[in-house]
Amino acid sequence: MTAPAPAAHPARTLRVTKGHGTQNDFVLLDDRAGLLDLDAPLVRALADRRAGVGGDGVIRLIASTELAEGTAVLATEPRARWFMDYRNADGSVAQMCGNGVRVFARYLEHLGLWAASDEELVVGTRSGAMTVRRAAGPDGDLSWLAFDIGRWHLPGGAAALAAGHDAEVEVPGLAVARPALSVDVGNPHTVLALPDVAELEAARLADAPSVSPVPPHGTNVELVVPLGEATVDGVLVGRVRMRVHERGVGETRSCGTGAVAAAMAVRAWAGAGAPDVWYVDVPGGTVRVTALGADHAELAGPAVLVAEADVDLAALVGR
Amino acid sequence: MTAPAPAAHPARTLRVTKGHGTQNDFVLLDDRAGLLDLDAPLVRALADRRAGVGGDGVIRLIASTELAEGTAVLATEPRARWFMDYRNADGSVAQMCGNGVRVFARYLEHLGLWAASDEELVVGTRSGAMTVRRAAGPDGDLSWLAFDIGRWHLPGGAAALAAGHDAEVEVPGLAVARPALSVDVGNPHTVLALPDVAELEAARLADAPSVSPVPPHGTNVELVVPLGEATVDGVLVGRVRMRVHERGVGETRSCGTGAVAAAMAVRAWAGAGAPDVWYVDVPGGTVRVTALGADHAELAGPAVLVAEADVDLAALVGR
Repeated sequence: MTAPAPAAHPARTLRVTKGHGTQNDFVLLDDRAGLLDLDAPLVRALADRRAGVGGDGVIRLIASTELAEGTAVLATEPRARWFMDYRNADGSVAQMCGNGVRVFARYLEHLGLWAASDEELVVGTRSGAMTVRRAAGPDGDLSWLAFDIGRWHLPGGAAALAAGHDAEVEVPGLAVARPALSVDVGNPHTVLALPDVAELEAARLADAPSVSPVPPHGTNVELVVPLGEATVDGVLVGRVRMRVHERGVGETRSCGTGAVAAAMAVRAWAGAGAPDVWYVDVPGGTVRVTALGADHAELAGPAVLVAEADVDLAALVGR
Repeated sequence: MTAPAPAAHPARTLRVTKGHGTQNDFVLLDDRAGLLDLDAPLVRALADRRAGVGGDGVIRLIASTELAEGTAVLATEPRARWFMDYRNADGSVAQMCGNGVRVFARYLEHLGLWAASDEELVVGTRSGAMTVRRAAGPDGDLSWLAFDIGRWHLPGGAAALAAGHDAEVEVPGLAVARPALSVDVGNPHTVLALPDVAELEAARLADAPSVSPVPPHGTNVELVVPLGEATVDGVLVGRVRMRVHERGVGETRSCGTGAVAAAMAVRAWAGAGAPDVWYVDVPGGTVRVTALGADHAELAGPAVLVAEADVDLAALVGR
């Protein structure tokens, strides 16, 4: 007589949610109590688009009290109960992500951690507390989310503003080098204007455009085509179309800080009387950038949760 | 007094499974009764890597009796109870997919439709019935799946076999044009050998290599580096490393028929006494190709189910 076989060990599964903001997509994890060992190989495996779930990044929801960076945010903003622990697809820890903040807020709403009756949601990030609100989308309904993305400035100062440029960019696929304007939105951007959509489409952005003078820490590069201005419900609104090469990544479908940089550059070029509100059409959709005072900007846009998935951890990291 | 508000309509969700074979990945749907309206926009939305679930294709499980193509297969092979309704990521209907057949068989096993006690599983495809068996992987366990992928031949015939080539290919990143051998595995392939891995890595395969004479319906192109032969457990085994440009797609992580073409080309070049068994290292993993008789080949490799997901259809197709 042999001993009974041991019960099969239940498959270890991890529940995740997949969401995106203008096709900047994320794998979201609910780890409120901070029990998950989210190491770089697990992040890479989850973000792998073929062997995993797939995403531009992985966002862990964790109580701010469970993380040193969260505790630091709580010291300045006691409402920042939940922390957005953002990781790049390569497994590295990242500061923040404009589209990611909206998707993270949508996730908290979905989990019942942001009530419909609460006007604002304050989330902790490695760039400090962000205050998210529900905002009108293009249809006028409150389907979008918005937050003050922080300070922006022109590193070239008054001289760059007067000249309209402080750099030159060579873009593969475009005949000549173009003047460009440096914009800092917490991270470096270089924005150049093109005369029409045909030129925008001719640009090849898989490889990094060459920027001179060479930025010491690299730069994101935004190609923009101003599409005009109009008065909507008594507010002057501008519109631009944009493509972006993200530093170290390549061309992406959307970049939140890039949209802010693009809008603020076009606004600077337009001079006095330019709109404060800008719709920015990116390949993955449309976002809205609103200048707040002299040196802040609000980013608004959609945030969608597409699927909830149970991931088989053995299958994920087993090969 | 007003009428009570109607109950909120429950969110429509679709349960899918995500799986891959050597990183050729698929969204799998259990639609045994054929109730799902799987139109091209839904396929495209599911396969979208950023706004959807993401995959190289979508595979619907459907009873063969519920589909004209399935009924046709049943007429010749009554065991083909389940049909693999394969769709490309662009929404178009496709014949078959070598890595997809294995992942589909793994899915049937997972759903309890292929019992552990049944040695073989016969599945219907648009290329006819395929008989899948569990096969030894590199560790000797029965972790792989294998099936006869069908007939292959050299379109150039005896002349091409004697010369070792019947085409010439220019590959971006490589200095000179190379002689190449055409191999038909139900679809067209052109295989060229490179002397070492450094050259293999130097090739740029994002764009289609130029093949002359120009193939009338295009061709997949495989770059291979023969890595030698060895006797393992009394069997002579060859090994090749391969990269592939898939016709109309670009470079991919794996291609089942491409691995068969690569192995059969290297075997033809090796001449009499060459191994019948070939391990093919592709970017997404390793598969094994075994020559069966004069003109068939078995493809063996891993197949993994990574996640089960509930997709919010409104979020998926709503924007």
